[in-house]
Formats: sequence, structure tokens, C-alpha cells
Amino acid sequence: MDTKIVTIELDTRSYDIYIGKGVLFRLNDFLPDEVAGRSFFVITDRNVQSYAQQIRNLLAQEGAGRAELFVLPPGEKTKSFEQVTAVSQWLLSNGLNRDSVVLAVGGGVIGDLAGFCASIAMRGVSYVQVPTSLLAQVDSSVGGKTGINTPQGKNLVGSFYQPSAVIADIETLQTLPERELLAGYAEIVKYGLIGDLGFFEWLEENGERVCTLDEEALAHAVEVSVRAKAALVRADEREAGRRALLNLGHTFGHALEAAAGYDGRLLHGEAVAIGTIMAFDLSVRMGLCSQEDRERVEAHFQALGLPVSVAFIEGLNTSVDKLLEIMRRDKKARSGKMVFILSEGVGRAFVHSEVPEDLVRETLRDALGGEAISGGRHSSLQGIKERWKSAFSSHS
Amino acid sequence: MDTKIVTIELDTRSYDIYIGKGVLFRLNDFLPDEVAGRSFFVITDRNVQSYAQQIRNLLAQEGAGRAELFVLPPGEKTKSFEQVTAVSQWLLSNGLNRDSVVLAVGGGVIGDLAGFCASIAMRGVSYVQVPTSLLAQVDSSVGGKTGINTPQGKNLVGSFYQPSAVIADIETLQTLPERELLAGYAEIVKYGLIGDLGFFEWLEENGERVCTLDEEALAHAVEVSVRAKAALVRADEREAGRRALLNLGHTFGHALEAAAGYDGRLLHGEAVAIGTIMAFDLSVRMGLCSQEDRERVEAHFQALGLPVSVAFIEGLNTSVDKLLEIMRRDKKARSGKMVFILSEGVGRAFVHSEVPEDLVRETLRDALGGEAISGGRHSSLQGIKERWKSAFSSHS
Repeated sequence: MDTKIVTIELDTRSYDIYIGKGVLFRLNDFLPDEVAGRSFFVITDRNVQSYAQQIRNLLAQEGAGRAELFVLPPGEKTKSFEQVTAVSQWLLSNGLNRDSVVLAVGGGVIGDLAGFCASIAMRGVSYVQVPTSLLAQVDSSVGGKTGINTPQGKNLVGSFYQPSAVIADIETLQTLPERELLAGYAEIVKYGLIGDLGFFEWLEENGERVCTLDEEALAHAVEVSVRAKAALVRADEREAGRRALLNLGHTFGHALEAAAGYDGRLLHGEAVAIGTIMAFDLSVRMGLCSQEDRERVEAHFQALGLPVSVAFIEGLNTSVDKLLEIMRRDKKARSGKMVFILSEGVGRAFVHSEVPEDLVRETLRDALGGEAISGGRHSSLQGIKERWKSAFSSHS
Repeated sequence: MDTKIVTIELDTRSYDIYIGKGVLFRLNDFLPDEVAGRSFFVITDRNVQSYAQQIRNLLAQEGAGRAELFVLPPGEKTKSFEQVTAVSQWLLSNGLNRDSVVLAVGGGVIGDLAGFCASIAMRGVSYVQVPTSLLAQVDSSVGGKTGINTPQGKNLVGSFYQPSAVIADIETLQTLPERELLAGYAEIVKYGLIGDLGFFEWLEENGERVCTLDEEALAHAVEVSVRAKAALVRADEREAGRRALLNLGHTFGHALEAAAGYDGRLLHGEAVAIGTIMAFDLSVRMGLCSQEDRERVEAHFQALGLPVSVAFIEGLNTSVDKLLEIMRRDKKARSGKMVFILSEGVGRAFVHSEVPEDLVRETLRDALGGEAISGGRHSSLQGIKERWKSAFSSHS
């Protein structure tokens, strides 16, 4: 398979994304800076540390001045001020200088945390993203948003800071737990829903090939996703306008994640899937979008085993008022006014900041009160899990 | 006195610096954003909290949606990850949104910390610097460097993040302890030494007027300093080249501060004064600068009571090797190679990264071994303190 290259054009901060099979093991070919004599700081988590160790060994072989490794606990709780302090002090105690490179090897958590640490260490050193989850490959590793969580919410502290390269090896997805793979797939669907009906139609045909790791289908889906994100980032790096479209499903999704408490019951991509259906539901209520389009999206999520209903979240204890309160604190909100990404149909999303609160309440009430729909964890997800058992080796 | 306005030209991130008497009490006239309905977060320290309270009251009167106040302990130790965490969580718990404005009311410590917090809260909200120390007015509030300290050194974590306005009220210097005023004066002299012989000559004539708070002389010195800094920041925002000239005296000075342990024995401006003499000493040793120029600078510092010798630092316990080790870890160092700002004479500084280590060692050895020179705290500083007693009211 040829390596696919997508360039993010941002003047002096432009960079390339390399997508392919085995690119991780030729990482030195893709680094913009010379390896020899330079210090590298590889940050990873326990689940994927074997990849990180291979990268460290490769850099040492290529003559790196230093190649250090820091292994963090996996999970959303790692995105904390405490770990930023620990990682920063580790970097500075191990000879970081302005020519050093930080490598983030892992999923969204590692990319967001390591990118943030790179952006503030010595007021900014280079960093390279090596995303090993589908979500990170198609979304979080591209575009330069870094961040951590605080008790007040997710990603409320961070920076806009572009990597100097992204190296997305689809082979690493072989060891990704199937539930995480599927959650990442929700972000792929998002690009079709935002602005590319043709891609959505392709996914309707080929989504199962993507989710069962057919290499050609997977590489194509990652490439199309990254190109879509690149276009939005180029148009609006700091999310003053169009880039906000990437938050389709996220206003509701983030509120559900916050209500569920980030304890692993609800993955980010799962929250996005449920939130996307809620955004379509609100769009239908506002007369913007047809019921058929909402059902078409729901049918696609269900076909692949993605959750489409709040009932998926086991033991969720929340209310319409609580969710509304969280949504008003969302970063996109301005002076307490909520901002939604709504849809006029598949492939036609737009930003809307004048949504009547009673319609938002109706959407939330129906979502919380509705009976379990067949996208729940115990129905079709179970089905697809069965089908996958032979295809995957899990590293839970 | 007319308000002086200096513009920092940085494309979309340009901003104005307002210098004058009483500008703090008309702050709302200088804010780039409308006050009514907006949330303001005023960050200050105990020493100057009365100014911050007046600003908060003013903003409340002008119809601010919120005007919150956070009072930190004074001193360098406040620039820590611990306080970044505390301030960030305070901002987010009190309704910060993307339209909010952070106001830093204080000296360099508050400006660096509050600026850093503003740069990472929601990936960046607006902030306004209200510097109340001479050092902050002529140096740290201008140019967008923010940062905190770690056990590994000063300002090793931070960001480049420009304020949306700087409001420098020279009246606040009335309550500044005289030792801090003098330390700030060292940074004013620096601008003459870097590239403006005429300004240095003006300071030789008028330095005492500046240090005894003659309003016209003070406002002129602040304005010339800020213009000089503005030109260097505009040419090189992220310190890839010329901006490094602002570090004249800082490679040696930072090492002395680190060796002294930031316990208040040695103020930053005092360290810069001593470090500047060492930089001139090294320049003389390299045959770049005449002994007469070195002595001329030393004579000016001594005339005003600034320290010019390491002997000033009471009970300093260090060595040539220890200082060299600290200097090699300096942010400016690249791959272990130290970078110095040297001088070819008053008004002619330049960046030099190929200084023979034996000459650096000689400079350090002489500085550590030399007898106390008359700039020490117990000689002419005592003299100028006597002269000032009638002119100042201290708020130590």
C-alpha cells in the first residue's frame, strides 16, 4: 500500500499527515527534522507502549542524541493538571531544549496531553502525533487542538498548537479494542454528515469493510476524513466560524459525557453518535431537516452497532435541567447562549446560535425518556462483536 | 500629562500600550472590548490589591456582567503549576466564557502568571496587562511572553500570547518599594545599552530624576523603553533572532538568580544589572568592547545605587561549575551550546553563540572571587535610600 500524504496548509505552520500500513516503523522517513543528535521525548500510555518502545529504539538506532520514554496510565483522567505538571518536569529534567521533539504515541488522550505539554514547555517545542486509535487518526491528531480536563469540564484548558507531522499507521488499529474502533468510526461518519453526501453514501456501502479493518477501505476512510478536517482547519484554524462544524453531535455529546462522569461507560465517539442523532432530532423539530434523513443516519449507526440512544448509557442519573446547565457552560457558548451544529440534511450541517430553548428541552426530554433503541450495547453491538471475534486480537 | 500611546504592530494581534498618570482609574476608556455585559476576572497580589479592587469597582459601575477578583501571595513562588491550577479552576468555576477578559494587575509575577492562565483557559481568552511595577511597565507586560517556574528553572513553562492592551499608570510607582523601583530601572538602562547610545546618555543626565519619580522623566523613560521593546517584538515575536537582544545581562543574571534560590535576596532587575556588567566583562575579554565602555556602564549603575558585583548577594553559595551548569540549561542554549548577548560598546549589543568556554569561566571566576565593589547593598544603595526617604512612601 502506498503511503497517502495529506498536507495541512497553515503558512509557516503547515505540516504533512502520513497515512499507511507500517509507517510507524519507518517514522524517521517522515520526521521534518533530522534525527541525528536531536533529543526525542516519547509520551505514551500503558496500552500502546510497545509501539512507543519500538519508536524509541528506532530513533536511538538512527543516532538520536536522546530518546526518552514516559508511560502514562490510559484513560480520560490522565488529561489533568497533575499529569501536565509531571510530564513537564520530566521533559525539563531530562535535557529538553528548543530543538527537542515530543512524540505523542497513543489515542486522543495522549495526543491532547502531550501536545499541550509540548506547547508550553519552553513556550513551545516541536511535536509529532503518532495516533494509534481510529478516533485520533481521523480527528484529534489533526488540527492542533490540545487540552486537558478540569473538574469544570472537558478540554477547558489547552492551546491551539499545530504538530510538525502526523504519522497515522492503520496497522496499529489491529490491536485497538473493537468498541473503541467503532467509537472512532462515528467521527468518520461525521465528515459525511457535515458536508459530503457522497462519502456518506460510500460509508453506507463500505462502512462494514472499514469496521472490519479491510485495509483499502480503512485507509480510504481515514484519508477522506483527514482531508475534510484539513479543509476546515485551514479555513478557520482557531474555530471562529466554520471549524465549529466539526462539533456536530458534540454539544449534546459532551453534556452526556459530563453527566456520565468519564468513567468509561460512554466513550467519546459513542457520545458523538448519540449526540448526532439528538442534533438531527432537534433539526427535525426546527423544521430544518426531514425525518427521513434523521432515520437514515440512525439506520447507518445501528447497522454498524453504534449507539443511537441515551438508554445505551448504563445507570445514567441526570435530568433535562442538569444537561442544559452543562451545555450552557460549553466552550462554544457565548454569554450563556448555546451554539448548536444543526443539519438541513445529510451533508449539509451549519452553525446555529438562536435555537429556542423549549425545543432543546423537548429533544433532551425525549432522549432521556425514550425506551432503549436497538443501538444499545446489548443488542446490535453484541452482534457485531460476535462477527469481529475472529478478525481481531484485543489488547483491552 | 497627556496619555502616551505606543502601538505594538503584530497584524491581527496588534495592541496599544497606554502610559500616563491616573490611566488606571480611566481603564474603561482604554479597553478594546465593550465593558457592559462582559465578564472580567481581575488577578492581583496582596501588595497591590487596592488598585485591583478599584478596577473591579470601576468595571462594576460601567455595567460589567461580572467583575471577579483573585488575590495571590506576592513573590516569585506564585509562578507555579499549583497556582496555575488554582487560578484556572477559579476562572472556570466563575463563569468564564470565550468573551471574558482577564486583567493582570501587578508586577511581573502577576503578569506572567495571569497571562499564562488566560492563554490556556478555553485555549485562550483576552487579557489586559495593568503593570504596577517599573519592571513590568518597561519590560514584562509588553511582548506577550507568559510563564511560570518549575524546580528546573525560571520561565521554563509558558506561552507566547499577546495581551489586548497594556495600561501602565506611572502613579502606581509611588507605592513601589524603592529597591524594586531601582531594579526596574536596570531594564530601562538595558534599552540604551542594546541599541540606543543617545538614550543611555539621556539616562546618564536624567537617571536620578527617573529614580526619584519625576513625572516627566519617568513617563519619557517608560515610553522610550516600551518603544524599543515594541520594535524588537515586532521584528521577531517568537524570539528566533533579534528579540534575544532583550536578554542582555540575562544569561549570567538568570544563573545568579537560580543560584540564589529566588528567596528575595536578589531581585530580577538586580540580577540583570550584575549580569550586564558580567556580559560587558566577557565582551572586553573577547576584545569586542573597550574597558572604558564597561566602566562607563558600571559607573552609571553605581551612581544610582544598582549592584554591579556578585558580592551584593548575601551568603551566596555557588561555584563556577554550578553556574555554568545552570547556564547550559538556559532556554536560549541549543544542544548544550550557550548563547550570550555581548556588546561592541554602549548601544551596540549582538547575539553570540560561539563564546570560548574558558573566557566564560574566567568571567565567572573573577565575578565570584572579586571583592565587594561599591555598588553593594551597604554602600551607595544605602546612600540613595537616604536621599529617597523623604520622597517615597513605601508599601513593603
